[in-house]
Amino acid sequence: MHITILTLFPDFFQPLFLSLLGKALEKGLWSLEVVCLRDYGIGQRKTVDAPCYGGGAGMLLRPDVIHHALDDKIGKIDPKPLCLYLSAKGTAVQQQHLEQWSAQQHLVLLCGRYEGVDQRVLDFWNFQEVSIGEFVVCGGEAPALMLIEGCIRWLPGVLGNTESLVCESFRDGLLEHPHYTRPYNWMGMQVPNVLISGHHQKIDQWRLAQSQKQPQN
Amino acid sequence: MHITILTLFPDFFQPLFLSLLGKALEKGLWSLEVVCLRDYGIGQRKTVDAPCYGGGAGMLLRPDVIHHALDDKIGKIDPKPLCLYLSAKGTAVQQQHLEQWSAQQHLVLLCGRYEGVDQRVLDFWNFQEVSIGEFVVCGGEAPALMLIEGCIRWLPGVLGNTESLVCESFRDGLLEHPHYTRPYNWMGMQVPNVLISGHHQKIDQWRLAQSQKQPQN
Repeated sequence: MHITILTLFPDFFQPLFLSLLGKALEKGLWSLEVVCLRDYGIGQRKTVDAPCYGGGAGMLLRPDVIHHALDDKIGKIDPKPLCLYLSAKGTAVQQQHLEQWSAQQHLVLLCGRYEGVDQRVLDFWNFQEVSIGEFVVCGGEAPALMLIEGCIRWLPGVLGNTESLVCESFRDGLLEHPHYTRPYNWMGMQVPNVLISGHHQKIDQWRLAQSQKQPQN
Repeated sequence: MHITILTLFPDFFQPLFLSLLGKALEKGLWSLEVVCLRDYGIGQRKTVDAPCYGGGAGMLLRPDVIHHALDDKIGKIDPKPLCLYLSAKGTAVQQQHLEQWSAQQHLVLLCGRYEGVDQRVLDFWNFQEVSIGEFVVCGGEAPALMLIEGCIRWLPGVLGNTESLVCESFRDGLLEHPHYTRPYNWMGMQVPNVLISGHHQKIDQWRLAQSQKQPQN
């Protein structure tokens, strides 16, 4: 899987070189190109933005600048990769989207900044607008990081023994039960007895009951 | 506002030194301490995790390790700061939470990794479990970045003229209308006529109609 990111802040994506995702990059399980939109800016000042037609606070990313970057990076690729635009007004990304997208050979992620992006370039390149979290942040970069983490961990070989895909929140509609580890007795609080009973059926029943007790949003 | 982050991957938070948030840090509009949980690990190997009681895949963060870090950093602070644990099974964070939290003097964010965190330390420090996005990622770091961005932008002086708090998605329950900027004619696609009419009432009506047309999640 290859991911192309279009952003004004390429350094934001340094976290992808850390931890599990960084190790998976080194192993070649996925690859990444971070494209700086500033490199496609207009004129000597490399302008990327302009005011909104019709008035209103804030600036927009220009369609010609984004088009120039996209044409350079994916213009000759056929069929076109799936293009996602991270935007507060997009469709909420859910677990099943990530499982689908992790099967794509190539994903393009456009990170908005300022007030957003000219609608025409989104239409031209057939962007899907997607949203992470029910609130507004400063740009699409942090949401893109989350989306990439959520996708890449589905690729074969990425997760080691310390993590697991099964028995997770969201997968089966139930939220996860509370967890306990060593020390058994900590600050006068003991691990629930059932968990050290060795009785797997009782443990499963207890965990299921606890999962159902968690607040559902 | 001061933010304390507890994490196994301190480098993940380099993006906070970039862009608007980084400038606001330099100006002293907020401050940040990133605490590495590994520094509080047990023994020569600085162990931070152990298997789940009751069985199951994956490791948990130990309660004593997290407690040691918290006691060191906020043990003497009274009243205790608001402690948030980023977890897929938490309450979904929404715009109004961020507006409330941005009024706090001090926030503590605990980033889970592996299967999660021992429940007892969450109870002891009265953590609120909060979730960003309806899917699972590799750890609490990317969600914490989003949460911090969403909070800090509410602090006075952080947003410049290029960004705006008003007229945003989520704030008024309506999603944002499409935006257009220069060039007026791009690839044969023109900006909608109403936006260059100079007729503010018609522009507002058009934008409202477009906002209602956007897919609501």
